[in-house]
Amino acid sequence: MNRLTHINDQGRAKMVDVSDKESTVRTAQASTSVEVNEEIYKAIVNQTVKKGDVLSVAQVAGIMAAKNTSQIIPMCHPLALSGVDITFRWETSPYRLHITAFVKTKGPTGVEMEALTAASAAALTVYDMCKALDKGMVIGPTYLNKKTGGKSGDYLREEQE
Amino acid sequence: MNRLTHINDQGRAKMVDVSDKESTVRTAQASTSVEVNEEIYKAIVNQTVKKGDVLSVAQVAGIMAAKNTSQIIPMCHPLALSGVDITFRWETSPYRLHITAFVKTKGPTGVEMEALTAASAAALTVYDMCKALDKGMVIGPTYLNKKTGGKSGDYLREEQE
Amino acid sequence: MNRLTHINDQGRAKMVDVSDKESTVRTAQASTSVEVNEEIYKAIVNQTVKKGDVLSVAQVAGIMAAKNTSQIIPMCHPLALSGVDITFRWETSPYRLHITAFVKTKGPTGVEMEALTAASAAALTVYDMCKALDKGMVIGPTYLNKKTGGKSGDYLREEQE
Amino acid sequence: MNRLTHINDQGRAKMVDVSDKESTVRTAQASTSVEVNEEIYKAIVNQTVKKGDVLSVAQVAGIMAAKNTSQIIPMCHPLALSGVDITFRWETSPYRLHITAFVKTKGPTGVEMEALTAASAAALTVYDMCKALDKGMVIGPTYLNKKTGGKSGDYLREEQE
Amino acid sequence: MNRLTHINDQGRAKMVDVSDKESTVRTAQASTSVEVNEEIYKAIVNQTVKKGDVLSVAQVAGIMAAKNTSQIIPMCHPLALSGVDITFRWETSPYRLHITAFVKTKGPTGVEMEALTAASAAALTVYDMCKALDKGMVIGPTYLNKKTGGKSGDYLREEQE
Amino acid sequence: MNRLTHINDQGRAKMVDVSDKESTVRTAQASTSVEVNEEIYKAIVNQTVKKGDVLSVAQVAGIMAAKNTSQIIPMCHPLALSGVDITFRWETSPYRLHITAFVKTKGPTGVEMEALTAASAAALTVYDMCKALDKGMVIGPTYLNKKTGGKSGDYLREEQE
Repeated sequence: MNRLTHINDQGRAKMVDVSDKESTVRTAQASTSVEVNEEIYKAIVNQTVKKGDVLSVAQVAGIMAAKNTSQIIPMCHPLALSGVDITFRWETSPYRLHITAFVKTKGPTGVEMEALTAASAAALTVYDMCKALDKGMVIGPTYLNKKTGGKSGDYLREEQE
Repeated sequence: MNRLTHINDQGRAKMVDVSDKESTVRTAQASTSVEVNEEIYKAIVNQTVKKGDVLSVAQVAGIMAAKNTSQIIPMCHPLALSGVDITFRWETSPYRLHITAFVKTKGPTGVEMEALTAASAAALTVYDMCKALDKGMVIGPTYLNKKTGGKSGDYLREEQE
Repeated sequence: MNRLTHINDQGRAKMVDVSDKESTVRTAQASTSVEVNEEIYKAIVNQTVKKGDVLSVAQVAGIMAAKNTSQIIPMCHPLALSGVDITFRWETSPYRLHITAFVKTKGPTGVEMEALTAASAAALTVYDMCKALDKGMVIGPTYLNKKTGGKSGDYLREEQE
Repeated sequence: MNRLTHINDQGRAKMVDVSDKESTVRTAQASTSVEVNEEIYKAIVNQTVKKGDVLSVAQVAGIMAAKNTSQIIPMCHPLALSGVDITFRWETSPYRLHITAFVKTKGPTGVEMEALTAASAAALTVYDMCKALDKGMVIGPTYLNKKTGGKSGDYLREEQE
Repeated sequence: MNRLTHINDQGRAKMVDVSDKESTVRTAQASTSVEVNEEIYKAIVNQTVKKGDVLSVAQVAGIMAAKNTSQIIPMCHPLALSGVDITFRWETSPYRLHITAFVKTKGPTGVEMEALTAASAAALTVYDMCKALDKGMVIGPTYLNKKTGGKSGDYLREEQE
Repeated sequence: MNRLTHINDQGRAKMVDVSDKESTVRTAQASTSVEVNEEIYKAIVNQTVKKGDVLSVAQVAGIMAAKNTSQIIPMCHPLALSGVDITFRWETSPYRLHITAFVKTKGPTGVEMEALTAASAAALTVYDMCKALDKGMVIGPTYLNKKTGGKSGDYLREEQE
């Protein structure tokens, strides 16, 4: 006769069941930044980077990454996003590109991961397009600014500075 | 007769030609971190997170993201990676999980983006699996530690702090 | 103090918000064609192309591309398609394979892009499988025949010729 | 004048229309197994396999494959899964790892393919991680245990021994 | 005893063996176009399209599609591309955007499909971003302009007018 | 001062380094099967399955899965395949469709996983296209028949019956 040994599933991964969650409008906004040197700042602003217009490409990268989040983050639920918007602003002392990703959906789970992944992919794209000039760029800190919708309620990050 | 207007391609994106670059062994190591609260630290270490063993899943996410980098970063060249290794260490005051990604290939371009993307995906996965406990986690700073191989030579980040 | 410069977002890309749009049944039909020489026409019809049965493979390629449209077209919203059908007919003077893609969904946005992408992928697959015989094949014109559903109403392309 | 020849579409593939199907909760459970030798059994249980903790990685692979099913199976409808769970148990005479995949969704089609694909990907991952020890491992039989929900009703596989 | 029936593989698809082909530098250039009305022409040129800067996004879409070609075209061999460049020019009577995709690799197979797929994806992206203004845009004809490298020799399309 | 705790990496996953392995021609052949009832056998052979010609679609699915293997199997190295061939034969007592996948590459690692994944995807596609007729189909056993090339030498499965 066979001896069967059940494996204790403690600590094992699963994509948790969300079929009971209501489908509602949810939004999330996440931020990151890329610290660059003056040469890179000027090359981005003057659009002289050899690989192309950095911010245009970073924006597309962020939007596509938002749509692809559940393929990048293993336990993340797939969601049909209804809107994604990536915006940039420069801080110049030191030179730091701030990236904000805003994601919206109507679905059973929140879109925090989509916003964080979009911001990260945009920042990584900036690094890629400028790394021939300097490899010392620093990405982040990356964090969630706020979310709305869902049973757990809204979240607003306390301003730090 | 048709009037043709050539669009000035200044600033437009391209995947730059690397067919003249030699295929050599190249490595890159990148780091990031996730700042967590004590509750999350304990849940990860004791493997009591509901979604599963956080570090195991983050490691797989990082390796798969490394292989998928040229699909996430638009102007990044596709490369057949020969090895990827993700390691973790904890700092406990404050609670901070340090993530290091090491990538190796034999090819015509460097693997800095693969290492940075792997580290970022691992960190995002940690956030995803623990966000039910606290949404205030902070990812990064994320940066390149070192690279070897290629015509531009080796790079070693100066220690800071 | 930091100087902050907001980047004017004029012209920057975003995936526009569709969370207010109603989820209704929508269809779209798009057409393209591949102009081939007599040798290729006979090879396709007699199923003697070395790479396999061209139309079978083109059909599968079109269906899979329809499902993958939001990964190919950056600002296109992801949608769960409910049906895809690709049909072929031959015109023989000159030899031209007409490809029609019909896509249906129940969702908040139309499926024009899914139909156009499916038709294009099917045509590209025909080119790929026959290019050893002749590289002079011409794909298209490619256009939308009609769409139904959605607030903007139905669309029917005026017959031309 | 053009001669047009309609291709008989008998036998040609399509993704059949499901827009009339109701969106309801659906579940499916599928099973497979991997027959291994004693050396591999011990290496998995003692976590001494060079490529890492086999079951952790197989579990992640299964969950990601479930989410990716409509990209692997051409005529399979895309679905937003609400939960995926992969479990393992050992039989030791002979050594056989049993893998069960449970998938849940709220949608218009069943999730049988997602459960079967998840189980298969998990088994293939076990093979990959252990093949340096022995290439004689056997995967399967792979089959559906049960499904619930949908118009076609529930299905329960008759126990076979 | 079992009766075995071999299926005649005539007409069945395969990805043909290229392991004997030499790895050499290969290039391909493909063209397509999008016929638009005056309103769309002005909106693209003045960057007033609601979804963003059309040509920037189309360019990124084309480059990413080039890298993804072997996932879109079933029998197409995967290749590590070494360079991709997408350029645009306007014809204004009628209004027609010409799109040219140039692809380069060092590998065992040509890159005709990558160039054709890149041009097609760029054109589809233009359609997607402008379709709110007019759904009557026409894509193509799409064709190969030239290729270099490989045993089959160079190809140059005869100019047609 | 920070207390640093290194995590013991025993059992953790990595994609092992293969940069020292020689790039040589490698082949692998894997088999699986699908046990079906008489109704399904007849529907496949007579091409009356509603979703289309089952074997044509299964063949395309297998080839595309072979190319996608390193995205499905987490620790599997990416490889540029040079050829994939999927063949079928019927056994009719009981009704069983035998599927064989043959994969070839010139690269640093073997293609066992690509062959096993191709065979599995083809079998899953058969199940998907016929499951409206009967959900009791059984896939497998799935195993490696043989491999050639690479330092570990050739492998030939002992015939079992």
